[in-house]
Amino acid sequence: MYTERVKEILSWYSGENPGTLKNLARILNHGKLGGTGKMVNLPVDQGFEHGPARSFAPNPLGYDPEYHFQLGIDAGCNVHAAPPGAIAACAAKFAGEIPLILKLNNSDSLYSGGDPCPAITGSVGDALRLGCEAIGFTIYPGSTFRNKMYEQLRALTEEAKSKGLVVVVWSYPRGSGLSKKGETAIDVVAYAAQIACQLGAHIIKVKPPTAHIEQDAARKVYEAKNIPIATLADRVRHVVQSAFNGKRLVIFSGGPAKSLEDVYAEIRGIHEGGGFGSIIGRNSFQRKKEDAIVMLHKIMNIYAGK
Amino acid sequence: MYTERVKEILSWYSGENPGTLKNLARILNHGKLGGTGKMVNLPVDQGFEHGPARSFAPNPLGYDPEYHFQLGIDAGCNVHAAPPGAIAACAAKFAGEIPLILKLNNSDSLYSGGDPCPAITGSVGDALRLGCEAIGFTIYPGSTFRNKMYEQLRALTEEAKSKGLVVVVWSYPRGSGLSKKGETAIDVVAYAAQIACQLGAHIIKVKPPTAHIEQDAARKVYEAKNIPIATLADRVRHVVQSAFNGKRLVIFSGGPAKSLEDVYAEIRGIHEGGGFGSIIGRNSFQRKKEDAIVMLHKIMNIYAGK
Amino acid sequence: MYTERVKEILSWYSGENPGTLKNLARILNHGKLGGTGKMVNLPVDQGFEHGPARSFAPNPLGYDPEYHFQLGIDAGCNVHAAPPGAIAACAAKFAGEIPLILKLNNSDSLYSGGDPCPAITGSVGDALRLGCEAIGFTIYPGSTFRNKMYEQLRALTEEAKSKGLVVVVWSYPRGSGLSKKGETAIDVVAYAAQIACQLGAHIIKVKPPTAHIEQDAARKVYEAKNIPIATLADRVRHVVQSAFNGKRLVIFSGGPAKSLEDVYAEIRGIHEGGGFGSIIGRNSFQRKKEDAIVMLHKIMNIYAGK
Amino acid sequence: MYTERVKEILSWYSGENPGTLKNLARILNHGKLGGTGKMVNLPVDQGFEHGPARSFAPNPLGYDPEYHFQLGIDAGCNVHAAPPGAIAACAAKFAGEIPLILKLNNSDSLYSGGDPCPAITGSVGDALRLGCEAIGFTIYPGSTFRNKMYEQLRALTEEAKSKGLVVVVWSYPRGSGLSKKGETAIDVVAYAAQIACQLGAHIIKVKPPTAHIEQDAARKVYEAKNIPIATLADRVRHVVQSAFNGKRLVIFSGGPAKSLEDVYAEIRGIHEGGGFGSIIGRNSFQRKKEDAIVMLHKIMNIYAGK
Amino acid sequence: MYTERVKEILSWYSGENPGTLKNLARILNHGKLGGTGKMVNLPVDQGFEHGPARSFAPNPLGYDPEYHFQLGIDAGCNVHAAPPGAIAACAAKFAGEIPLILKLNNSDSLYSGGDPCPAITGSVGDALRLGCEAIGFTIYPGSTFRNKMYEQLRALTEEAKSKGLVVVVWSYPRGSGLSKKGETAIDVVAYAAQIACQLGAHIIKVKPPTAHIEQDAARKVYEAKNIPIATLADRVRHVVQSAFNGKRLVIFSGGPAKSLEDVYAEIRGIHEGGGFGSIIGRNSFQRKKEDAIVMLHKIMNIYAGK
Repeated sequence: MYTERVKEILSWYSGENPGTLKNLARILNHGKLGGTGKMVNLPVDQGFEHGPARSFAPNPLGYDPEYHFQLGIDAGCNVHAAPPGAIAACAAKFAGEIPLILKLNNSDSLYSGGDPCPAITGSVGDALRLGCEAIGFTIYPGSTFRNKMYEQLRALTEEAKSKGLVVVVWSYPRGSGLSKKGETAIDVVAYAAQIACQLGAHIIKVKPPTAHIEQDAARKVYEAKNIPIATLADRVRHVVQSAFNGKRLVIFSGGPAKSLEDVYAEIRGIHEGGGFGSIIGRNSFQRKKEDAIVMLHKIMNIYAGK
Repeated sequence: MYTERVKEILSWYSGENPGTLKNLARILNHGKLGGTGKMVNLPVDQGFEHGPARSFAPNPLGYDPEYHFQLGIDAGCNVHAAPPGAIAACAAKFAGEIPLILKLNNSDSLYSGGDPCPAITGSVGDALRLGCEAIGFTIYPGSTFRNKMYEQLRALTEEAKSKGLVVVVWSYPRGSGLSKKGETAIDVVAYAAQIACQLGAHIIKVKPPTAHIEQDAARKVYEAKNIPIATLADRVRHVVQSAFNGKRLVIFSGGPAKSLEDVYAEIRGIHEGGGFGSIIGRNSFQRKKEDAIVMLHKIMNIYAGK
Repeated sequence: MYTERVKEILSWYSGENPGTLKNLARILNHGKLGGTGKMVNLPVDQGFEHGPARSFAPNPLGYDPEYHFQLGIDAGCNVHAAPPGAIAACAAKFAGEIPLILKLNNSDSLYSGGDPCPAITGSVGDALRLGCEAIGFTIYPGSTFRNKMYEQLRALTEEAKSKGLVVVVWSYPRGSGLSKKGETAIDVVAYAAQIACQLGAHIIKVKPPTAHIEQDAARKVYEAKNIPIATLADRVRHVVQSAFNGKRLVIFSGGPAKSLEDVYAEIRGIHEGGGFGSIIGRNSFQRKKEDAIVMLHKIMNIYAGK
Repeated sequence: MYTERVKEILSWYSGENPGTLKNLARILNHGKLGGTGKMVNLPVDQGFEHGPARSFAPNPLGYDPEYHFQLGIDAGCNVHAAPPGAIAACAAKFAGEIPLILKLNNSDSLYSGGDPCPAITGSVGDALRLGCEAIGFTIYPGSTFRNKMYEQLRALTEEAKSKGLVVVVWSYPRGSGLSKKGETAIDVVAYAAQIACQLGAHIIKVKPPTAHIEQDAARKVYEAKNIPIATLADRVRHVVQSAFNGKRLVIFSGGPAKSLEDVYAEIRGIHEGGGFGSIIGRNSFQRKKEDAIVMLHKIMNIYAGK
Repeated sequence: MYTERVKEILSWYSGENPGTLKNLARILNHGKLGGTGKMVNLPVDQGFEHGPARSFAPNPLGYDPEYHFQLGIDAGCNVHAAPPGAIAACAAKFAGEIPLILKLNNSDSLYSGGDPCPAITGSVGDALRLGCEAIGFTIYPGSTFRNKMYEQLRALTEEAKSKGLVVVVWSYPRGSGLSKKGETAIDVVAYAAQIACQLGAHIIKVKPPTAHIEQDAARKVYEAKNIPIATLADRVRHVVQSAFNGKRLVIFSGGPAKSLEDVYAEIRGIHEGGGFGSIIGRNSFQRKKEDAIVMLHKIMNIYAGK
């Protein structure tokens, strides 16, 4: 029996196929936050994005992708996200123990010139074959290649929805259209959430926004309308509003490893602003397993309002 | 029972499939202007094109795409147009209450270099799945990427027509082939209408033209033949003539929000020149709902000849 | 019962499907020149290529594509060629009254930088759906994009032939490989005809060649072999020879509107040189209808040897 | 009953489908050299490559593609190769009288900038429809576009082999990776033969190599291992060895028209070095027919060891 | 009956189809090292990559691809890898005598500008038709074209796995993202192994890494965490760990021909570090056959722990 909150959330996606609704419900109902409408997810694509030593040497158990599956299961996360190789290596062994997002595009950092545009590294067929609940895809608004990414996402989304999968979009502004500071500016992050919504994402991941405003045309409106952006909670509230007035699941990434106090403070801001949860990678798998689980449970309690 | 005017209009499209004629009739017969052969449409793609705050902060109810559906229904517009995410979010809830145009390409403004070329953001399959009557597509004649857009439109048009949908083209000249002033020049707007007709559009949206003439080769003919372009009505008449001698539905966009007097004056010019209607976005949804409805009804009355 | 001349011409295409032979025969047997093996065709793509006012203001009836269908019918032309929008608008109304060529690529002139490469604006499926006898396609030998056009034509030709259609190629040398004068040089026009033949065209349209020789390597041969190129008839004879020794239907375009005397002189040269006919656009539809018909009949009489 | 030599040659292609073996046997068994394992082929693509006057004015009968078919038949060549237009024009009339290679890519010379990359001008479907035994394809190793050509060839080869056709590759090094002299250097020609073999060609056409060595890394080996390259026979032997140790049919092109003595001397060198034959275009069809047949028979006698 | 070690290795690939597991087992169980979980493979693509004389003149028997098949069989290698032409030439004759990897992309060196990006030279269909157990593919992390290669590999991998084939990836960092020295740096080679794993490779081939560290961000971690990289065994151990903690088959290439002592020393280092084997090309086929077999057996003995 679904909770009222899960039923309400599903009602926002009334245009989708029953298979997609089922898989979205599986994610919302799984783990310690199951049924609350909040989520804490475990993503691990850093081996591909930053290299194995930078990602896993701080906690060498992480060289093995099975470690991440087990961590996600033991900590009671809602869902685990990873690139195709890692999912394929473990999906049979842990079949059904935790919902999965197959990350379908990735970038490595052995070459790093030009505007960002990841490689497509998996398919909807892979996600189905491996028993995943969702596909994951990163877009970089602000890149000269943004339209290429939007079009790749569009095609994958159409196929994924037609086959009952959920679509999760990492919407990370970056590229020559933006300043470095602008990548997390409040106007830019809100815009990035809107773009992901309009492209059909069910769950949108953005970075916690700062109070910086990047675009002059936007600044005029923020000032004229006195849109509150002073606190993280204010800014999260604005981003959530920018995602179909709160009717899309917007969650926030954790960024580089930091102190526990900083982590918890950020989570409290996200929770206060109405964010639907967090996606915590390096801050969890680069800690010792028992420490990571304590931290993740503490975060889950914040989202559960405990 | 269709009106004589609707029957006449449908006769201009005698080469199309019955499914397309049925959907074109649905659009012409819906709303306060139903049966008159005139149209007032509500488009909302500004969240994607300009960002959420710039679009919706003036009237924050607009952050929710359901607001726009309800506005279109309550005001008696002929059709509502929006990007895939917004349509998908509301199509089931408002199924059949207002005809829909699924906008299949869109541009965001987090990157803004180079000539315009939107991303493809939806498909004919999406339009069918979501119960839309029409697809919408923007072309930018004058852009270095014009041919890419024409070819995308061609392929989508062939598929849409074969599946009984209507094709609505936003033909907005822009790009390095034109001066800024040339984007709304009378010769350029008339040419843009002709291109959309030749590409197979059923309904063509252009901007109200100015009396400027952009191209030297065209100026010679306008002068030699004394083509009247002094008033907006003259210019609209010429644009309508340029669209298969008035046998294609040419409607005009409203542009940025402005005073009511300016809006009504423009509508009167379009009506006098034989334009088939208007597409009113920011001027309606950035006003308070009751004000917007009053304005839209006044516009509809002008087109109805009341 | 076909004439001996039509039977002879069809024998040059013995490798084609019966459907293609039937449609080629329909074109050869239609109109005042039916059965003579000569052709006068009416093409109207200037609305797309040059804009509506430049094309139709001299005779405003031409804003309506129905006018062109009726003109082609009333003048007894063999075939009418136009872009997809115009054909789609009229094909049902005039179904079967005149053979049709659906022009599958077109260029507009709102952007005009770089080497020419038209947009694909229609498909073989469109030609079949609209009841056309042939597809038309423009190639620009000499352009940096020539190979792209040849490959597009190749694919369309294979599909069109497999479905019983005729392939008509406008072979107009232009681009950075050639001087302006070279576009109509005798060596270049003859070469352009050869290329179209080798790509599988059934009917080839070229411009009347001048006595200029563009390429040094060619000039040596023309001089060494004393190839006659002094008169238009000489040059037409050489171009016809260059098209599989006269076994492909090569016809000549009329170019910009000019005096009747100039038109007739050119036609006499083409006829004397063995050309298979003309394609007359602006010189016919920019004149008053009755004048155009008188002129077209006079041209047809020249080709009929009267 | 096949000769022992033909059976031996077919054994080198034991991995191919029976249909391909049958067509390879047809080519080996046809004409005056039928059954000897040697070949003399007649290629005519110069009309497309160099233009009609440069190619056919020396012997104007050649403007008609039927002339080339009849010449190949009357001279007893093994196979005739030509572009799609010429093959389509004559294939029905001469059906089965001489094996045919449909040339699937071609370059014209009205534009001549940049590295070479021909247009695809035909398909495997065309070859089947027209009753050809083989497809022909040119690659230009050394061009910046080499990989594009290799990939086009790969796809065509897979399709052709699956449908029982033979694959003939013109491997002509050219482009910015090589000096002009390097195009026929012994190391380069041997390498070009190897590349064609590895891409799956059944018959490889190269140019007669000179004693020049183009690449420093290669020169070291030629000198250290004392590979004999002084005479044409030496060099042909090395090229044949470089083509799977003599287990692929390597034949040599004739180049521009030259004196009979020069032609025969070259053929003797190729024969002495173990080459499998020649492909003679301009040297045959630019001569008078009776002279060409005398020359071709003399060449065939050299290859027959008479 | 499979050995315990082979069963253990197969358990790491539990997500794959039975057909893929069968073919992986065939490779692991074949040859002198069959059943040990170690491999020595014979690759020969140098004819395509470096040219025939540079590759085969040191031992001219190698001009014939049959020689390499027989060498791999006689030496008891696990698997033979070669480009499509060589495999097609011999696959029928040696059907089933040794497992085969069809190399699906290759580069020649007649053109050598720009970042590396091989041509696709074969297909999964070819691998199936020719009876191969695996496809082979080279990626060049660090190249501007890396993403193109990753995406080609992704598509081929999905198809190959769906048809029961094994996927072998040559992961060779190279291109403008890296210094020459960086191509074999320990951080880069470990990263390259990780990328191949994440893209779904079953067997990964890398070069023996040096103690150089290329990337500053990586160096900090290697130093902070004291990752041992002083000896080849240390570095191999780190690379193997970086490949899903030793749960993917990582093997090492041999590079240019060198002295036997150098070869054996390298193999001992790889073995000590836990590498799964070697791929030995030029060091074997450029030696006399009997010498090569002695050397390969000695290498196999090292891997067998004898």
